[in-house]
Amino acid sequence: MIDKILIFPSTELFLGNQLLKTDKLLELCGNQKVVLVADAAIKDLYAVALAKKLRANLLTIPSGEKTKNWDTAQTLIDQLFQVGCGRDTLLIALGGGVTTDLVGFVASIYMRSLPFISIPTTLLAMVDAAIGGKTAINTPYGKNLIGTMYPPQAIFVDFDVLQTLPAKEWLNGLAEILKMGLIRDGSLWEMAQKNGESSAMILQAILGKMQVIEQDPMEQGLRRILNFGHTIGHALEAVSLYKMPHGQAVALGCLVEAHLSLQLNYLAKEDFDSILAMYKKFALTLPKTYTRSHLLQAMAHDKKRAFGQIRFVLIDQIGHAIPFDGAYCRSVSPNELESTLDWMEQWK
Amino acid sequence: MIDKILIFPSTELFLGNQLLKTDKLLELCGNQKVVLVADAAIKDLYAVALAKKLRANLLTIPSGEKTKNWDTAQTLIDQLFQVGCGRDTLLIALGGGVTTDLVGFVASIYMRSLPFISIPTTLLAMVDAAIGGKTAINTPYGKNLIGTMYPPQAIFVDFDVLQTLPAKEWLNGLAEILKMGLIRDGSLWEMAQKNGESSAMILQAILGKMQVIEQDPMEQGLRRILNFGHTIGHALEAVSLYKMPHGQAVALGCLVEAHLSLQLNYLAKEDFDSILAMYKKFALTLPKTYTRSHLLQAMAHDKKRAFGQIRFVLIDQIGHAIPFDGAYCRSVSPNELESTLDWMEQWK
Repeated sequence: MIDKILIFPSTELFLGNQLLKTDKLLELCGNQKVVLVADAAIKDLYAVALAKKLRANLLTIPSGEKTKNWDTAQTLIDQLFQVGCGRDTLLIALGGGVTTDLVGFVASIYMRSLPFISIPTTLLAMVDAAIGGKTAINTPYGKNLIGTMYPPQAIFVDFDVLQTLPAKEWLNGLAEILKMGLIRDGSLWEMAQKNGESSAMILQAILGKMQVIEQDPMEQGLRRILNFGHTIGHALEAVSLYKMPHGQAVALGCLVEAHLSLQLNYLAKEDFDSILAMYKKFALTLPKTYTRSHLLQAMAHDKKRAFGQIRFVLIDQIGHAIPFDGAYCRSVSPNELESTLDWMEQWK
Repeated sequence: MIDKILIFPSTELFLGNQLLKTDKLLELCGNQKVVLVADAAIKDLYAVALAKKLRANLLTIPSGEKTKNWDTAQTLIDQLFQVGCGRDTLLIALGGGVTTDLVGFVASIYMRSLPFISIPTTLLAMVDAAIGGKTAINTPYGKNLIGTMYPPQAIFVDFDVLQTLPAKEWLNGLAEILKMGLIRDGSLWEMAQKNGESSAMILQAILGKMQVIEQDPMEQGLRRILNFGHTIGHALEAVSLYKMPHGQAVALGCLVEAHLSLQLNYLAKEDFDSILAMYKKFALTLPKTYTRSHLLQAMAHDKKRAFGQIRFVLIDQIGHAIPFDGAYCRSVSPNELESTLDWMEQWK
């Protein structure tokens, strides 16, 4: 079964089992020149066969968050020139969030944009990174600080590729599903508590994200709630020099920002305890390179910052981020943050 | 007198004398943090005073086309992080096309875009580079091959800054005015022949470009005519390792592409002779590093290329580019190009 959903603003989202074995993608390619860019880790598993099926040039990028930078983008751009990629070339990304973010960024700036299709192969990319049209690379100043808004023409979510996903990667994706549960979808949180069926959770998480984005495409207000857990999370990743997996950092970030919500008297102790219990399935460990001053410095470049103040998304119950008069975040002073950081540092 | 025109899709264009001495720009800045990025060559002439007036951080970028690359963009991005530039920072570019293209590109990708205002200070940037929302950097594979479509919030064209413009820079701008004359505005060509009043020519060239872009913002057809002279011109710049000024390359490119139009029996000999006479005011010299094979190689990455063929915009009279069924360009085989290149090589 294949579901097709049109998502904002003009992306076709295909979901289903055995999706990559159908001819749907081949149809979309038409008679365009096609370049498939895959994570090197899944070259033999999926990429070689798919490139053959699509009669596409195959290029790979190295695995891992620390390669999501300008050097990798530039190497890819050079390879695209070398294979004669022009404005009439379709670029397809096959991989996790690192791949879809980076290839999407390259697609958005190469000759001022190329047609682009995204095939997320990790749970995290399916429910979060590949949805919503954001592209990005990291900088020494922080994560995702360079990028564009460039929605792909189509996204293919094939549940079958999850069968080969390492267990660690499952937890990474679960972190973003839980985030969606905390900020707006209590029923998704309950499904996760009961270890619900994964394709149902994936669909619900995607639909939730899409609804948020449709209401606030340019991140003027509501869309900021998707950043819950990421103010701390992104900073932890930067502190770890991008060795800490994104999902792991987001899980820790969500728990810490839930604690901040408790600390500032928005969230009931009972709700927080239930949240804490859920996050016990994650390794609650700070990066070895963690220092508080480095963390604060990394947060100083957070994109939600305004008038010199760091701002946090906060929740007042499981399934509800606080609107704060439409800003959906509020500034938190260093003093207000202190006891939450003290609490977090038990995991050093 | 200040004219204000709303141009596609949402840019406010201000034109006038003494424009930078008014408070118009200060009003637009409001209470945002402002960073002014200027061409180093006009730092003392205009930038220091303007930054002071706007209470802006002042950054400079080195002059010259060969600095319009990723290294300069990255240095600028690092400096923006260092001065604490966030999404609420307004970026203002002050300089020629190199500055407005590069700063516009940085504005479009820094934290997925910053508010941006453009102040072109050369004739060329006023009539061409700063108009139309294209941003770009060059690559070793060719000119403007990396970039975005990112129209500024506002463009300030102050005729007074032209008083300090070197004579060589006048010719550079004239090349784009003449191009507009050749492709769609015979009356502008006549004004240029009669050495007409410069502010009138500037306004007419800007309006002409805006009309083209409004009809075809995404360069699917008509907008390609703006590329007349640039297929050869960009390749000459690449061959010269960006030492040849853009206007000079475009002037030579327009003349050569007019010759190609003659050669392919679209343009009358009489019209061509009149065009040739006009371009005598330019130095008709090929770069010292010119070789035909290098030129052909540089053209292979032209953005108009389709299905492996190089395509040219051609004219059938002064003031009229040929529609070619809405493509506004046609493929030209190496054989068809040969005698025109032979003719061009008299300037070696």
